[in-house]
Amino acid sequence: MSLIYFTPGPAQLYPSFESHVKDFVDQQLGSISHRSAQYRAIHQFTVEQLRALLQVPDTHQILFLGSASEIWERIVFSCVELESFHLVNGSFSLKFADYAHALNKYAHKYEKPMGQGFVASEIVVPEYAELIGVTHNETSSGVQMPVNEIHKLKTGNPNKFMAVDMVSSAPYPELDYSLIENAFFSVQKAFGLPAGLGVWIVSEKCLERAQQIKNTFSIGAHNDLPTLWKNALNHETPATPNVMGIYLLGKVAQEMNGIGVNNIRKETEAKAQKLYKFIEKYQGLSPFVKEKKFQSQTVVVANTEGASSDLIKALKAKNMIVGSGYGKFKDSQIRIANFPATSMEQVDQLIEAITAL
Amino acid sequence: MSLIYFTPGPAQLYPSFESHVKDFVDQQLGSISHRSAQYRAIHQFTVEQLRALLQVPDTHQILFLGSASEIWERIVFSCVELESFHLVNGSFSLKFADYAHALNKYAHKYEKPMGQGFVASEIVVPEYAELIGVTHNETSSGVQMPVNEIHKLKTGNPNKFMAVDMVSSAPYPELDYSLIENAFFSVQKAFGLPAGLGVWIVSEKCLERAQQIKNTFSIGAHNDLPTLWKNALNHETPATPNVMGIYLLGKVAQEMNGIGVNNIRKETEAKAQKLYKFIEKYQGLSPFVKEKKFQSQTVVVANTEGASSDLIKALKAKNMIVGSGYGKFKDSQIRIANFPATSMEQVDQLIEAITAL
Repeated sequence: MSLIYFTPGPAQLYPSFESHVKDFVDQQLGSISHRSAQYRAIHQFTVEQLRALLQVPDTHQILFLGSASEIWERIVFSCVELESFHLVNGSFSLKFADYAHALNKYAHKYEKPMGQGFVASEIVVPEYAELIGVTHNETSSGVQMPVNEIHKLKTGNPNKFMAVDMVSSAPYPELDYSLIENAFFSVQKAFGLPAGLGVWIVSEKCLERAQQIKNTFSIGAHNDLPTLWKNALNHETPATPNVMGIYLLGKVAQEMNGIGVNNIRKETEAKAQKLYKFIEKYQGLSPFVKEKKFQSQTVVVANTEGASSDLIKALKAKNMIVGSGYGKFKDSQIRIANFPATSMEQVDQLIEAITAL
Repeated sequence: MSLIYFTPGPAQLYPSFESHVKDFVDQQLGSISHRSAQYRAIHQFTVEQLRALLQVPDTHQILFLGSASEIWERIVFSCVELESFHLVNGSFSLKFADYAHALNKYAHKYEKPMGQGFVASEIVVPEYAELIGVTHNETSSGVQMPVNEIHKLKTGNPNKFMAVDMVSSAPYPELDYSLIENAFFSVQKAFGLPAGLGVWIVSEKCLERAQQIKNTFSIGAHNDLPTLWKNALNHETPATPNVMGIYLLGKVAQEMNGIGVNNIRKETEAKAQKLYKFIEKYQGLSPFVKEKKFQSQTVVVANTEGASSDLIKALKAKNMIVGSGYGKFKDSQIRIANFPATSMEQVDQLIEAITAL
């Protein structure tokens, strides 16, 4: 009996995942050289599909790393000589700041409690901060920062680099890459693939900056931006990459392009609206994020009246897996992923299953 | 028609690879949380199988990272405050030294041309070097450093940390982990799996050293050793790992334990002997590595009389893929991987195919 995963990552796999894996195995792609024309064609295909899907201009490269966490580190190495600034309202935005600190940068933070969001007008960016770290979607709390607020933050601070964590929301946010120098995600969330691959969309301005910083400070040795960039021009990676992950991502992005990213965004909003409406009305659940504009469209977090573990268990008995709350909210919240891999019908099934408990 | 890959990585996949992938997909393991008991059981199983296979004592942790290249960086961060020392006789041993340099360490090198090997008695380790980087098997040139020479190097320099690159040889080298603090490999070589996972075997002495260095220098932010270690005690990783890779590695290691690592080592030597004997006798091929004790048992490199691309093409027409030479030897050498995934029968087939050309 197969389970439906509503967990916010690793998550439900994309419906066609199994057939793409079969093709990968049948074509023996696990054995091909990462310096062969055959590999370069796969790499280039995936980059082109992502470029079309996310409307990434030629000023930006699309790079493959091991995970989004690795990308936090590479962004700090590449864009920050001394000081960074982070909007922190959950565990993952905090970890980005912690990474900067661990690399001996001064990591300024503007903090809010979990469940609250940010607007541009309230934010004062420290004068010497070189980078603004923004989390479009806090996977831990289900708070999103509206894309227009992210853009406003940049237009108010044009000389700072932006880094947008869209780990658990891409391809949903429609970012304007003429404003955003860095954005990144990992494939085990909304792309519905097994974990083990992070994607970094990065501007040539960061490349120039990394080359400058390198004159004074180390910018890292593994997957440093200039080496990644140089290899990407040849549709390669510096070290042997996760070829299977890159292949599968290209196939899923191609299907998403077939559906159309705007249709995926509308479908995401329609499913989210249904989930929030249900949570608001249903006795025993209430939305954790109170302000509508901050309510994540891709990770819906609800307070539970009783222990959330009871609800999770009851749903598991019906072959549906929802996520527990994060950290101190582990047993008082549930998290429901609303990624493209789950359909409106499956959302309906989940709502019916909870209602029938 | 399926191809036989004799390439030194990515390489021929382990014969049971396909059935393990099928199990992974059928069990929906791509969707499970990396903080769940189900994941921890997989993680623990793989560590236990590797521990048995490679005879790793409890003083050492077995850690999962994105690639062996990433592990170079993490070893330098963790074991080197100021100076490292590297035996360099090929492209990969040089890259390890380059990584140390890129992290602003002073990377001493003792260099020999490609094709030549090292013995302990000739090596003078610089007084202030904290780490000795040794490549058990140079994938680029097919030179191995005999394990007893690696051990002698340590006993002659007991206060230096050792780091043994066994990327393209594990599980072949029988390392004594009472002498070796660091060893590492990636799964797309002798374990016959798709790329995207590196394994770091590391001693508690390195953990202590990393904690000391952290007081003065950054030891990195992503996958820093203390955080990796702490998570490993709980059978987890700091970030979402390549769960599929870890699962598959556990299954292959389990099968290798079933065969017995000593049987695998003997089989490897028997196949290597057959290959070297053939190359020595066959008109048109000659071993690149002249000294027997330095001839790799897992990556056999031969000079070709004519252009190696002609030979590679002719073999491809017979559904056999051998590797080209590395770097400047690209068109004057072939590299033949001799990993557990290729059988004695397949080695015979390759020899017959070349003979019949």
